[in-house]
Amino acid sequence: MTQNIYDDPIFFEGYARLPRSVAGLDGAPEWPALRALLPDMKDRRVLDLGCGFGWFCRWARQAGASHVQGIDVSEKMLARARAETTEAAITYTRADLERLDLPAGSLDLVYSSLAFHYIERLSGLLSQIHRVLVPGGSLVFSVEHPVYTAPATPQWIVDQAGRKTWPVDGYLEEGPRTTDWLAKGVIKQHRTLATYLGMLLRLGFVLTHVEEWGPTDAQIASSPSLVDERQRPTFLLIAARR
Amino acid sequence: MTQNIYDDPIFFEGYARLPRSVAGLDGAPEWPALRALLPDMKDRRVLDLGCGFGWFCRWARQAGASHVQGIDVSEKMLARARAETTEAAITYTRADLERLDLPAGSLDLVYSSLAFHYIERLSGLLSQIHRVLVPGGSLVFSVEHPVYTAPATPQWIVDQAGRKTWPVDGYLEEGPRTTDWLAKGVIKQHRTLATYLGMLLRLGFVLTHVEEWGPTDAQIASSPSLVDERQRPTFLLIAARR
Repeated sequence: MTQNIYDDPIFFEGYARLPRSVAGLDGAPEWPALRALLPDMKDRRVLDLGCGFGWFCRWARQAGASHVQGIDVSEKMLARARAETTEAAITYTRADLERLDLPAGSLDLVYSSLAFHYIERLSGLLSQIHRVLVPGGSLVFSVEHPVYTAPATPQWIVDQAGRKTWPVDGYLEEGPRTTDWLAKGVIKQHRTLATYLGMLLRLGFVLTHVEEWGPTDAQIASSPSLVDERQRPTFLLIAARR
Repeated sequence: MTQNIYDDPIFFEGYARLPRSVAGLDGAPEWPALRALLPDMKDRRVLDLGCGFGWFCRWARQAGASHVQGIDVSEKMLARARAETTEAAITYTRADLERLDLPAGSLDLVYSSLAFHYIERLSGLLSQIHRVLVPGGSLVFSVEHPVYTAPATPQWIVDQAGRKTWPVDGYLEEGPRTTDWLAKGVIKQHRTLATYLGMLLRLGFVLTHVEEWGPTDAQIASSPSLVDERQRPTFLLIAARR
């Protein structure tokens, strides 16, 4: 089973205080770029994998989706997601994303934000996604960028001149990376960018957009600490069509 | 005009001594991976952009291509390429790759090895390539990987424990990078991986393969110094279909 770090009390408490947990989608600097990849929501049947507190599910419903299903492995996150809505058109399911069995050809959009880099057997999950989408349906997702996940020691190096660099190593050595982010021993799965794209192409997806997210000038102006995120890509955003 | 570093005497002399210049395609460790992306050459009309000494042109003809045109900006390289063949089905043209004007729908394959990262206005060249290909025709090319071209100081950092890391900075700041490789002041154009893919998608290409090249175990066994090339991707290999 995928590591369920979100139900770790220390991790959960830290995560619940992040801007993206408190302010929702608008607290995530990559959200405008990810939203731009989404199709018109009107009357779409939508699935959110790793839905967390349900911010995207509620947004999608408000934007016109006919039904939104959120799936997450974390009981704590789903409990809060359920408490935030009374809409019958939004349903939440607790499940391990590596063990989904979804009805074929039943959805128009599968969305996932920053969840797939926790998944060990991602090609199995992507195969399920391909199966559940109608022909022409969309997959839009974000992950931590491979340049971000690769290093054994994912911390900026500052040289004597004050220049910051991101110390890439192990890029082509795929597999688990253990980091201390919010809690000790968080396991992420590093895979190369080419591996993400290759998995999609082999399943028959058509790639429609690939983005290596960095902050805009306006975002840096209002949140100066984001400037480092232009030195190396933080997030990878991908849109594909079945 | 694109920088014509290859006609610089110092650069040319250094380049002519590289394994890939002396041994040809088999001297380039990424060649087996690039070759695997090529269609069957039988009766194909082929264009090689940045053909250099003509190794690929001769290989393509031998593999069955009906006609192969090599284009390069370097007089010195073309002179040697011309001296290496008497085949009428191989023709060489000197031209600036940023100022090509090719007849529409006349080719089955456009190939380019490690040339596009010297091109300033790449989207114009890719547009020409799209135009010159027949529907269903292929573009297969390699460039230095964006993680390789990004750094202001593209040199390994070795820490006190002997760990080697590649110091990425400026990844999202696209534009020229000046390095001293074989000669002083070689200018390469850094662009992100997403930019390469986005240019192709916007032109209507269908992406069929994206590879971040690293050496195989067998290659490392026979050339141990290649082991560093698994720490960060060196080359980006892309195949697309018109």
